[in-house]
Amino acid sequence: MCEEEDEWGARLHSLLFQEVTKEELLLCRSTLNAFMGLNRPHWTEARQTLQKLLSKDEATLRDDAALRQKAFVAQAEAQMHLPADIGDYTDFYSSIHHATNVGIMFRGADNALMPNWKWLPVGYHGRASSIVPSGTSLHRPWGQLKADDAEAPVYGTSKLMDFELEMAFFIGGPATKLGESIPIEKTQEHIFGMVLMNDWSARDVQKWEYVPLGPFLGKSFGTTISPWIVTMDALAPFMVANPKQDPAPLSYLKHDDAYSLDINLAVTIKPEGDNVDHVVCRTNFNTLYWTLKQQLAHHTVNGCNVRPGDLMGSGTVSGPESGSYGSMLELSWRGKNTVAVGDKTRKFIADNDEVNLVGFCEGNGIRIGFGECRGKLLPALPREK
Amino acid sequence: MCEEEDEWGARLHSLLFQEVTKEELLLCRSTLNAFMGLNRPHWTEARQTLQKLLSKDEATLRDDAALRQKAFVAQAEAQMHLPADIGDYTDFYSSIHHATNVGIMFRGADNALMPNWKWLPVGYHGRASSIVPSGTSLHRPWGQLKADDAEAPVYGTSKLMDFELEMAFFIGGPATKLGESIPIEKTQEHIFGMVLMNDWSARDVQKWEYVPLGPFLGKSFGTTISPWIVTMDALAPFMVANPKQDPAPLSYLKHDDAYSLDINLAVTIKPEGDNVDHVVCRTNFNTLYWTLKQQLAHHTVNGCNVRPGDLMGSGTVSGPESGSYGSMLELSWRGKNTVAVGDKTRKFIADNDEVNLVGFCEGNGIRIGFGECRGKLLPALPREK
Repeated sequence: MCEEEDEWGARLHSLLFQEVTKEELLLCRSTLNAFMGLNRPHWTEARQTLQKLLSKDEATLRDDAALRQKAFVAQAEAQMHLPADIGDYTDFYSSIHHATNVGIMFRGADNALMPNWKWLPVGYHGRASSIVPSGTSLHRPWGQLKADDAEAPVYGTSKLMDFELEMAFFIGGPATKLGESIPIEKTQEHIFGMVLMNDWSARDVQKWEYVPLGPFLGKSFGTTISPWIVTMDALAPFMVANPKQDPAPLSYLKHDDAYSLDINLAVTIKPEGDNVDHVVCRTNFNTLYWTLKQQLAHHTVNGCNVRPGDLMGSGTVSGPESGSYGSMLELSWRGKNTVAVGDKTRKFIADNDEVNLVGFCEGNGIRIGFGECRGKLLPALPREK
Repeated sequence: MCEEEDEWGARLHSLLFQEVTKEELLLCRSTLNAFMGLNRPHWTEARQTLQKLLSKDEATLRDDAALRQKAFVAQAEAQMHLPADIGDYTDFYSSIHHATNVGIMFRGADNALMPNWKWLPVGYHGRASSIVPSGTSLHRPWGQLKADDAEAPVYGTSKLMDFELEMAFFIGGPATKLGESIPIEKTQEHIFGMVLMNDWSARDVQKWEYVPLGPFLGKSFGTTISPWIVTMDALAPFMVANPKQDPAPLSYLKHDDAYSLDINLAVTIKPEGDNVDHVVCRTNFNTLYWTLKQQLAHHTVNGCNVRPGDLMGSGTVSGPESGSYGSMLELSWRGKNTVAVGDKTRKFIADNDEVNLVGFCEGNGIRIGFGECRGKLLPALPREK
């Protein structure tokens, strides 16, 4: 909204924010990391200031056309960027329905959930460099693929391209020190806000590579996030009771305050030449088994330090019914069934399909949207074989 | 070596480097990222310039006491820092002896190596925030631990602390674009140089958490690297024939030029109150199955972008004999045997043990050292249970 070296920017900033500006024009940077690195009261003040300035009862902007012209960018002209430099990106696996579905497909119904799953929020480190904002196209990746009945893998392009419907939260607050944990009762001081996230996946690459160290190139070719962050203050009216957890979590993961979130979620696909986003999945973020607080308390229990701008994904959000599954892997049940996409069908994602994630909270006259989380899958780039 | 805003620094820099300085004083930053982001010829020029200036036949520094005083910091007074902001950190698993040993311990001799292991350099994303330079102490981590015969895990401190003897290389060259790969014949343009790396591991935490998404909190409490980077130009005289690979690697992993490295490696432990580093393992980096070129070609085959300052670990380097294993897990064979450490014994790492990694190349009158990669394991920090 303003540039650090810009006189207008400085004037605007000092008009708009009292507390936040004390030391530096932190909101005038190209990323939000420095602002996120302040404490929760500063985030709250910035939000309240913006809300006040945008209300019709407040004259500062309403009655100053020159200031308004400096303060706003037309939405159609705005180019969205990543909101932060993402130092580290972690992805959890916190939907019990998703973990169970994948478990049934790969290990059978009797061993669907791994023994550790209900004891800890399973997670892994993802690739930060390939996180892109909504609107960025990605290419179908190359990699090693091995058919079940083949003796050897081949080098080729993925045939089983998928989305994963996720949400993610950004870390805020001062960076923690290596060795220190964030006790669960303090986790909310470090949860800055949330975005939608599409954890694009190449299922055939993933299947061959992932034992024993986890997903790697099947994911690292690109991850899309929605371009603005909805803060936890904004989401507070949509916090609902946490899911019942059995077995009871260990002490460092125990919290009683409601921190599940009632966020409506959907996935759409728009095939090439079509002009409509067709819904293929509808679910709700409140189906997640582990809360964001539990994820963060677990992540830091070993003393792992976190820094403002770190991103933590939820894992694929699948609901209990088949229309609420958050990936084509589950919707098509590993390619056994077809999924209707307008007048076409899909088992996985086709070249030039545009995938979008939709997320919104609604109730008591309030509606909060997460913006788009859109990306087109372009054909693979040519390579020598 | 100099500060950007410092007149002396600028003079020094312009005296020392012609090509590298053309645009900016890139070597005057607090990290090497910008310098690493130049191309290989610039790295070579900087090295040659330094070597010339430090030779006894060159008068610039030799005959100018004032300049010398500005150009050097006494080693005893120097505090080493991380050489780069590490955007992403990847760890491979490229020692066939290590992968086989771990496989035998956990799955038996018949299934020791996973089917994918000889087809691709298995790797995973690690945590960048907790990478620290040599000399940084770490605390024994808390976490979830589950005994084989227990019904449920407990919250406590790790009892099975370990080191992993690794080396790592830093990415150099301009950042690649998302979607583009680095063909194997161009990988050397992006391999900047190498460091020693201790991938500290909490084996009990790791064992309970790692299925199915790989190691997470069992590693992310800290990773130590040696503080200066030895460039590939410096290592060129120590490149030796690559290991024989059977099956032959797929086309994108194939290269014939020698890129294995003859680097002598050792691990020492100094128990509390002792004043000697006791060697517990000696091996050589030339025992690695996959080359650095193959690791980087594989990492980017799917279009994953890399940035200067990214770090890529080799995985634990174990040789074929028992004294050459690069972890206590292997040296004590999962705690079955004791390992002599001076007049004490160890199965895993005890509180206040200091672990150091040693690496050097030697031959034809040249010796290149990697410096220390030292860290002390402090007792766990107190926590409420």
